[in-house]
Amino acid sequence: MTKNEFSHFETFMLSHMTDAAHDPHHVYRVLHASMDIAQHERGAGTTVDTDVLITAALLHDIGRERQFADPSLCHAVVGGEMALAFLLENEWTADKAAHVRDCITTHRYRSNNPPATIEAKILFDADKLDATGAMGIARTLIYKGQVNDPLYALDDAGKVVTGGNNSDYNSFFQEYNFKLVKVYDGFHTQRGRTLAAERKKTAEVFYNGLLSEIKETYENSHSYWKG
Amino acid sequence: MTKNEFSHFETFMLSHMTDAAHDPHHVYRVLHASMDIAQHERGAGTTVDTDVLITAALLHDIGRERQFADPSLCHAVVGGEMALAFLLENEWTADKAAHVRDCITTHRYRSNNPPATIEAKILFDADKLDATGAMGIARTLIYKGQVNDPLYALDDAGKVVTGGNNSDYNSFFQEYNFKLVKVYDGFHTQRGRTLAAERKKTAEVFYNGLLSEIKETYENSHSYWKG
Repeated sequence: MTKNEFSHFETFMLSHMTDAAHDPHHVYRVLHASMDIAQHERGAGTTVDTDVLITAALLHDIGRERQFADPSLCHAVVGGEMALAFLLENEWTADKAAHVRDCITTHRYRSNNPPATIEAKILFDADKLDATGAMGIARTLIYKGQVNDPLYALDDAGKVVTGGNNSDYNSFFQEYNFKLVKVYDGFHTQRGRTLAAERKKTAEVFYNGLLSEIKETYENSHSYWKG
Repeated sequence: MTKNEFSHFETFMLSHMTDAAHDPHHVYRVLHASMDIAQHERGAGTTVDTDVLITAALLHDIGRERQFADPSLCHAVVGGEMALAFLLENEWTADKAAHVRDCITTHRYRSNNPPATIEAKILFDADKLDATGAMGIARTLIYKGQVNDPLYALDDAGKVVTGGNNSDYNSFFQEYNFKLVKVYDGFHTQRGRTLAAERKKTAEVFYNGLLSEIKETYENSHSYWKG
C-alpha cells in the first residue's frame, strides 16, 4: 500500500467517525495492534495480506454512525458493505474488496459468524484487545458518561448490583460483568491471547478496588437521623 | 435531626442536582464518608456537631447548577449562601445556619480559604476522598465522556502527553497529573488520610497500566505503507 492510498482511506474513515465512543484513536490503536499481531503470525510462518488487514482495520467501524442513527442495523454488516463499495470504486479487485468486507463483517462477536481468514482473526483480536485491561475500563466509563448511564445501582438492601444479566441496570458494573469479564476468552491468535492476559490484572484490580471503596463507604457509616 | 427534617433537606438537595457529574450518589457517598470520619474523630475525643455536618454534606454541591450556567461563579460560595437562606427559612438559628454555610464555602480547595471547624474539615476530607482511588478515576472518566474530552492526546513524536500543567490538552492524562495525583496530600483528618492512602495504589495501578497499554500499542507496531 502506498502512503497516498493509505491517506485516501484514512480520510474516508475520518469522514465516518462521528460517533464519539468510537473515536479515531480507537481505530489507530486497532490498526497498530493488528500490525503487531500480524508480525507475530508471520514469525510463526503464516502468510498475512497486509493491504487487506490495514484496510479492514482502518475501515472496521465506519458503519457505527448508521447503527447509531438506526439501532436495528449491525455496524459490522453495514460497514462491511460500505467498505466493499468504496474499494470497488477505488479499483480494488472484487476478491480483495470482498476479503476486506468479510473481515469487517465478522469483527463483531456473533457466535454464528466467526472470523474465517487470518486477516479477519487478527482484526477481531485487535478490536477485542481494546476492550481488555485499563483501556477496556476507560472506554466503558467514557461511554457511560456520554450516554448518561450510572456508575452503579444499589439494590433495596443498599448493596451495589453486580449481576451481569440484569438489563434493568445500565451501570458500569452491569457492563463489566456482562461484557468486559468475558472478553478474555474469545481470542483467535496467540499474540492477542497473550496481550489480553497481561492486561487482565489491571482491570481486575480496578474493578475490585472500586467495588470495595463503594462498599466501605456505605458500610462504615451509620444512620443519620434520630426518630 | 429527625427523619422528617432529613427528608425535607434531601428533597431540597435533589431539586438542585441537575449536573450529572455531581449526581446524588456522590452526595450520599460524601454524607456516608462524613459520618465515618466523624465517628473516628469522636473516638479521639473531639466533639462533632452531627446536625451541622449532615446538613452541610447533603447540601454541599447545590451550587453546581448555577456554576454550570455561569462558570465565573464558584459553586462552593454560591451553594453556601443558598444553604444559609434555606436553613433560615427553615427556622435554624443564625449561628447554626452560618456554620453550615462556612462548611460548604470551604469544601472546595482554595489556599486562601481553608476549612476552619472540625465539621468543615470532615466535609472537605469526605469530598476529597471521592476523588481518590478507583472512584476518582471513574468519576473523571465519566466526566470526560460527558463533556467529550479525549482520553489522551499524542504529541508530535506520537507519545502520550502526560504533562500536568498544559491546559491545551483536556485529556484524562492531563486531569490525572494536574489534579488527581495531588489530592492525597491535602487531608485535614487522620481517618481521611488513612482511607486515601489505602485507595492510592488502585489509582496508580490503573494509571500506569493504561499508559503502558497505550505505549505498547503504538510501539509494538511498525509503519503501514511502502513509499
